[in-house]
Amino acid sequence: MSGNSGSNQMWGGRFAAGPSSIMREINASIPFDKALWRQDIAASKAHVAMLEKQGIVSMVDAAAISGGLDQVAAEYEANGVPENWDLEDIHMTTESRLAELIGTAAGRLHTARSRNDQVATDFRLWVRDAMDEADAGLKALQVALVTRAGEHAASIMPGFTHLQTAQPVTLGHHLMAYYEMIRRDRSRLADARARLNECPLGAAALAGTGFPIDRFATAATLGFDRPTANSLDSVSDRDFALDFLMTAAQISLHLSRLAEEFIIWASQPFGFVVLPDSLSTGSSIMPQKKNPDAAELVRGHAGRIVGSLTSLMITMKGLPLAYSKDMQDDKPPVFEAASLLALSVAAMTGMVAEARFRTERMRGAAELGYATATDLADWLVRQADIPFRQAHHITGAAVKLAESRGIALDQLPLKDLREIDSRIDERVYAALSVEASVAARASHGGTAPAEVEKRVAEAKVALGLES
Amino acid sequence: MSGNSGSNQMWGGRFAAGPSSIMREINASIPFDKALWRQDIAASKAHVAMLEKQGIVSMVDAAAISGGLDQVAAEYEANGVPENWDLEDIHMTTESRLAELIGTAAGRLHTARSRNDQVATDFRLWVRDAMDEADAGLKALQVALVTRAGEHAASIMPGFTHLQTAQPVTLGHHLMAYYEMIRRDRSRLADARARLNECPLGAAALAGTGFPIDRFATAATLGFDRPTANSLDSVSDRDFALDFLMTAAQISLHLSRLAEEFIIWASQPFGFVVLPDSLSTGSSIMPQKKNPDAAELVRGHAGRIVGSLTSLMITMKGLPLAYSKDMQDDKPPVFEAASLLALSVAAMTGMVAEARFRTERMRGAAELGYATATDLADWLVRQADIPFRQAHHITGAAVKLAESRGIALDQLPLKDLREIDSRIDERVYAALSVEASVAARASHGGTAPAEVEKRVAEAKVALGLES
Amino acid sequence: MSGNSGSNQMWGGRFAAGPSSIMREINASIPFDKALWRQDIAASKAHVAMLEKQGIVSMVDAAAISGGLDQVAAEYEANGVPENWDLEDIHMTTESRLAELIGTAAGRLHTARSRNDQVATDFRLWVRDAMDEADAGLKALQVALVTRAGEHAASIMPGFTHLQTAQPVTLGHHLMAYYEMIRRDRSRLADARARLNECPLGAAALAGTGFPIDRFATAATLGFDRPTANSLDSVSDRDFALDFLMTAAQISLHLSRLAEEFIIWASQPFGFVVLPDSLSTGSSIMPQKKNPDAAELVRGHAGRIVGSLTSLMITMKGLPLAYSKDMQDDKPPVFEAASLLALSVAAMTGMVAEARFRTERMRGAAELGYATATDLADWLVRQADIPFRQAHHITGAAVKLAESRGIALDQLPLKDLREIDSRIDERVYAALSVEASVAARASHGGTAPAEVEKRVAEAKVALGLES
Amino acid sequence: MSGNSGSNQMWGGRFAAGPSSIMREINASIPFDKALWRQDIAASKAHVAMLEKQGIVSMVDAAAISGGLDQVAAEYEANGVPENWDLEDIHMTTESRLAELIGTAAGRLHTARSRNDQVATDFRLWVRDAMDEADAGLKALQVALVTRAGEHAASIMPGFTHLQTAQPVTLGHHLMAYYEMIRRDRSRLADARARLNECPLGAAALAGTGFPIDRFATAATLGFDRPTANSLDSVSDRDFALDFLMTAAQISLHLSRLAEEFIIWASQPFGFVVLPDSLSTGSSIMPQKKNPDAAELVRGHAGRIVGSLTSLMITMKGLPLAYSKDMQDDKPPVFEAASLLALSVAAMTGMVAEARFRTERMRGAAELGYATATDLADWLVRQADIPFRQAHHITGAAVKLAESRGIALDQLPLKDLREIDSRIDERVYAALSVEASVAARASHGGTAPAEVEKRVAEAKVALGLES
Repeated sequence: MSGNSGSNQMWGGRFAAGPSSIMREINASIPFDKALWRQDIAASKAHVAMLEKQGIVSMVDAAAISGGLDQVAAEYEANGVPENWDLEDIHMTTESRLAELIGTAAGRLHTARSRNDQVATDFRLWVRDAMDEADAGLKALQVALVTRAGEHAASIMPGFTHLQTAQPVTLGHHLMAYYEMIRRDRSRLADARARLNECPLGAAALAGTGFPIDRFATAATLGFDRPTANSLDSVSDRDFALDFLMTAAQISLHLSRLAEEFIIWASQPFGFVVLPDSLSTGSSIMPQKKNPDAAELVRGHAGRIVGSLTSLMITMKGLPLAYSKDMQDDKPPVFEAASLLALSVAAMTGMVAEARFRTERMRGAAELGYATATDLADWLVRQADIPFRQAHHITGAAVKLAESRGIALDQLPLKDLREIDSRIDERVYAALSVEASVAARASHGGTAPAEVEKRVAEAKVALGLES
Repeated sequence: MSGNSGSNQMWGGRFAAGPSSIMREINASIPFDKALWRQDIAASKAHVAMLEKQGIVSMVDAAAISGGLDQVAAEYEANGVPENWDLEDIHMTTESRLAELIGTAAGRLHTARSRNDQVATDFRLWVRDAMDEADAGLKALQVALVTRAGEHAASIMPGFTHLQTAQPVTLGHHLMAYYEMIRRDRSRLADARARLNECPLGAAALAGTGFPIDRFATAATLGFDRPTANSLDSVSDRDFALDFLMTAAQISLHLSRLAEEFIIWASQPFGFVVLPDSLSTGSSIMPQKKNPDAAELVRGHAGRIVGSLTSLMITMKGLPLAYSKDMQDDKPPVFEAASLLALSVAAMTGMVAEARFRTERMRGAAELGYATATDLADWLVRQADIPFRQAHHITGAAVKLAESRGIALDQLPLKDLREIDSRIDERVYAALSVEASVAARASHGGTAPAEVEKRVAEAKVALGLES
Repeated sequence: MSGNSGSNQMWGGRFAAGPSSIMREINASIPFDKALWRQDIAASKAHVAMLEKQGIVSMVDAAAISGGLDQVAAEYEANGVPENWDLEDIHMTTESRLAELIGTAAGRLHTARSRNDQVATDFRLWVRDAMDEADAGLKALQVALVTRAGEHAASIMPGFTHLQTAQPVTLGHHLMAYYEMIRRDRSRLADARARLNECPLGAAALAGTGFPIDRFATAATLGFDRPTANSLDSVSDRDFALDFLMTAAQISLHLSRLAEEFIIWASQPFGFVVLPDSLSTGSSIMPQKKNPDAAELVRGHAGRIVGSLTSLMITMKGLPLAYSKDMQDDKPPVFEAASLLALSVAAMTGMVAEARFRTERMRGAAELGYATATDLADWLVRQADIPFRQAHHITGAAVKLAESRGIALDQLPLKDLREIDSRIDERVYAALSVEASVAARASHGGTAPAEVEKRVAEAKVALGLES
Repeated sequence: MSGNSGSNQMWGGRFAAGPSSIMREINASIPFDKALWRQDIAASKAHVAMLEKQGIVSMVDAAAISGGLDQVAAEYEANGVPENWDLEDIHMTTESRLAELIGTAAGRLHTARSRNDQVATDFRLWVRDAMDEADAGLKALQVALVTRAGEHAASIMPGFTHLQTAQPVTLGHHLMAYYEMIRRDRSRLADARARLNECPLGAAALAGTGFPIDRFATAATLGFDRPTANSLDSVSDRDFALDFLMTAAQISLHLSRLAEEFIIWASQPFGFVVLPDSLSTGSSIMPQKKNPDAAELVRGHAGRIVGSLTSLMITMKGLPLAYSKDMQDDKPPVFEAASLLALSVAAMTGMVAEARFRTERMRGAAELGYATATDLADWLVRQADIPFRQAHHITGAAVKLAESRGIALDQLPLKDLREIDSRIDERVYAALSVEASVAARASHGGTAPAEVEKRVAEAKVALGLES
């Protein structure tokens, strides 16, 4: 890039000195906002079509501009967007190329708009696409979850609280918990999209414009529900970006939990899962290693996605109206978060779809750790009609005895159990198997295989997999 | 608090040693979760009524429990919730007192539930109330904004970008920008509330229960739309708290921007506003000071509210299912954010409602800084039919000339203007007043007083102030 | 609190209206800054002694003030600090009580100072104490780590990367990794303390004072190294609080890692550790549970401590000089973080000191997962003089073979090993035991028991446990 | 990049299936860690020199490796680092190229090390350089601050608290406040650098190595003070990166405050400063605009730098030892923060050095707002010997009277002042000028021009500008 910046910089007329090299570097957004080129050209075409329809620009000029924009788009598609820092951003880069192609008529494109409403429009369009892509990715993840949950509706594993064996559950039930989280995440995306979908184009620099524009027309052309209602707000607002980052953060937290579980399950002492080779790596020094790298990266990416959200919240804090240049720092965090999120969702989808669950080890672990102790307590409540708190204490004594002998609860002889509480009889043993425990928990949303199957069936209908 | 913790601690049966003092302190949530007592008692009453209806608890026991809970509630109302760390949390505190009042029947209350689903239910109820209160506060703020905007639909002030005088706008238009932000915030609250409104009660510890409970009944009693669909998710989920914190963070960022503006406007060089005495303070050392403390605290609180959100996001990251004790750290950030938010909203409402705007100073400032330069450029586009970019350069030259002479744009003699561009004629002066500038910007959402009045009227209808 | 606030509010002379109730609530810092009372009185006593020595206040008045402050301190010690919101903060609360005790002479105490430098001084003193306490806590944790490391310098466990069994290490070596982290944390505290230790008292409101004060004297009395060098900076600066929070955040991250390990180690499939009863809890519903609550709370608290840091960073961002009221939001995050940190350090110290390590299970796990595969590769490099990359591939083939047969590496017959690479001979088996593996890694800082013992011995000297 | 990844992936021996495309993308760090190439080659050369000296690698092989590495470096310097995702990272990329150049001897380079200690070493070296560069940048900023402060040691401006005119100060004093902040920041960098400066090379994968390496030798070659003391810690530790980010965050907060001041000062109502053209931009729509973009971007960058810190804190939270792949997410935040910080420091240095301060407007503003009211109170304390609190009330009445008449304090006739308090006499007027006010504040660190000159002189010596 050369230093004769005067003629290239469209706002430069009144400056005695050219921007210093530091300024050029800190000011240029073209290295990242070139990602908006498709949106920028679409919005410009909608704008010029409206200008022509409203009689603000002649039919001839409008045709030249629109055709010129098509050519610029074709060039970008073929060769990428050129990065000339003196042209600062994607808007100036495109308009400058347009001027080279069609001459001074290019200067009419910027009538009744400003870079402030232009970038607000472009960026909304970009974020709207990112939301749609995230939603599609999440739907694929739901399909994977539901499919595997259907396969494992009755596969027994230990349910944990505090990472301690708590009660037996089924693997299908466990996977369906994530289906619910993702269901909420998709509703967040839908809410955020609806809120975003107002068009700022026509707000101009901050105050609206005196040209007789039709903002409803450009809004409709670009797929927005309506134009925004206040021009100052239109150019000062980055709520839509924050809405996206907040949703992305929430999704990434859900994925980080699933990733953590896969990492723990894949450890040798657990051995609950064999991760797909295609999502694991080896070690440069330890030949036996098979590392859950993808899961770890998903977990790590949660940090960076939440960090991106934090960035933009801090940047927006305390900014007076209307546009401030700080707001140029809105794009890098959003672009980074969107990219990390897309990769994370895809990686977890692959992981869920292709993992080999070692159900025999899961079932074995469920039988350790006195996971059916609650079933003994519940049995006492029901059969001996004693309050739950008492039953809880009696069971505690039974567990203590079994633990001291190193045996399972249902390996305690009836005699010993009756010494603890004489109301216990041999029917109790039927309640103490992991199958009995799981089957019993048939309350709505419970882990009983029949219940899990119902939820899976409903989910398949919701996803359009079945009708 | 006494040390004979053994008998008081309901889960303590199997422990050889009592918890150390560190453990008692780090573990006890009663110092903060006592705030949930109303929700806890309401949920317990709904639970026991359902247990009775389902035949799980006898009518006599249910009546005793329900009556006992009423008495506990009356005691809490009168004397506050006692803070006994050995009882750990509000659930144990209440059940323990219930047992004192009604004897062992109290132990039947905990049938078919666990503290895990109990706290999830209580906390959802609390957060739902906090959402409703925030919404009511925001509506009051909107009323204040709309009222003042109606008064000042035509009061001219400088519109800023980059805190540089950009174009004249009206104060009413500026205030309506915040109306739009708050409108979006209220829609966020509504979305979050709808997503929250599923009842986790009956998920028990993590797996559901074998007792024949009716989760739809308790959900309905407590005003939820339906029970949650997955018991593991029910006790592991804190999305509703994050949804609330995310919305609170977004609101606080909006308020921080308004606060920043009041602080700048109240400075001596601006002098745009006289803050109400009731929301200002003095100095212990400088007798002349009148400080915008409330606005500064609102701006500062944005930091703490965003920090609260960050806290909970970090805490939830990477937690395996189901409940982990880390999740006990969900409440302090939510309680703090809700309290800071309520104060912040109320303070800004008072500020907007009672501030005295110095409209003469605002108008004077709008006339400085060449704020109507864009109007000259727009005039050239329209009257001389030249592309905007050229008009922009011509105007730049005119500004430079006026600046060098220290005069306003409309004080430049026509002769000098025509030397810059011969197409300029005397009609141009009509476009260069701030009134003309503002009146011209009549595009949808623009700053023209007539447009602002339309938006104010629509807002008053939306708020139920007019019909 | 009564409403006749006029006379109580020391800055209230010029206000027509009293502060509204919202203002009183948002403005009052006494609910939290009363924690500074000891520091406030110490600083006031140092200030008045200096005023007297410099002849600014008479000996009689100085004696009255100093004696009065002692009495106020005694009252606070006995009855706590009264919370009157009309008196706003601890400074006004104390001065108001002093005036009741000694009359108008009390008004001379505020000569040549302002609340701005007063609170900056008080808060520094408080943070300095918090740093000292944190350092003492960390030293105790180091002692626990070193003690247990000494006991287990040769106890073999699996070393993990990616939570996959990687190579055998010793438990002592693992614990000493945390000793190193804490060593760095203590150096952070020392650095932060040195940077904090300049006294802002005498900066007055922002500009210094015209009274002939001796700032070096008050600095020395209060244990500071010197007075601060710039009065504007003195009242605008909260670096010391951020330094503390940053250090606290770093410490909490270290503790969260140790906590995570204890949680995983205590799970049934690992079973590496039995947590002390005194730092565990049970379940209200599952009688067999023994939950690692303290570790989970430590891990969760990392979220809140990092959130506290985030809070204050956001609050300070973009504040113009000098004091702004936003800075009143400096104390709650610091107080919260200090308290959570102290508890976390104490809990982890107890955990380390009292945990029962199940070394037999650890050793057993180290023998699974082909943890000595690297030793085979290293043996090939040394004995067969082949490049490491080749050795790595040969070993990979051996692991694959063993894995397919479900046996350990050293259970592969020599014949099969030689089929993979003919340079292997029977000496290889000596390298494949976990003891041999560990003993071999005697590089500086390596896991060989002899190395660990050296490090432990050095650490004991550094901690003053041995000489 | 081709798909025949098997042969290229050095750890791929045992995998049946190749990594999927998602895995290649999420796993590859070469797109960003190629920034480490200089450090990677330096560390490899130090490593192989030591291997040779210890007799682990032959002189011939060592020479081949070292020469080969020089050639790889020359290629990178000339053509950049190739980005082949199948080679994952800079380490594999370099080793792979080395193997192409020198054959199988290349495989000996990885003896007694692992990528885990290799990247820890490389990244430390990179961060150390970043610290040194930040320090140099900050020193330049200090020079600019001190130089301008020296010019304006006696230039009077209003000192603000709460952005309200408080007391007159000098511009030199104001600038020196930032000198103090940066002085602390440089001490943070120095502390962090000392803590970083231990060499992890030789920790190998996690446990140390059985080869007879000399870690002290490699540490010395690479400019480290010593080798790290614990191999597990060495590969698990990212404290040095957090230390850097924490310091960067603190610096960015300081810069954001200075930026905020420049933005406010450059607004038309303030008009305290004319920003250098070289650090400002214009508007695409408003020809008269001169925007403080650089200052706004510096303020905005604080958000992203703090966000980077938040990212890495979250990523590290709760990671078990030793290396986890999450830690690969350490580099992007550090690289981004270092780059944003360098630009921000340079921009503010230019701003401070080249800004034109409009001292006449500053002085004019200092005379408004009753900035010398405290001087009246102080005069009363000294001349009338009344307690400060009383003097404060008397002055409040005088300010109220002057305000009601719209005049300055020293424009009140003596008669009116004496009606408020009869102890006032004509000598008081000498205390009420802004010059007198500033000159009087000669306490250590106060704003009196003579004091400011002393501080400037000391600073110039500290910076080596004078001796």
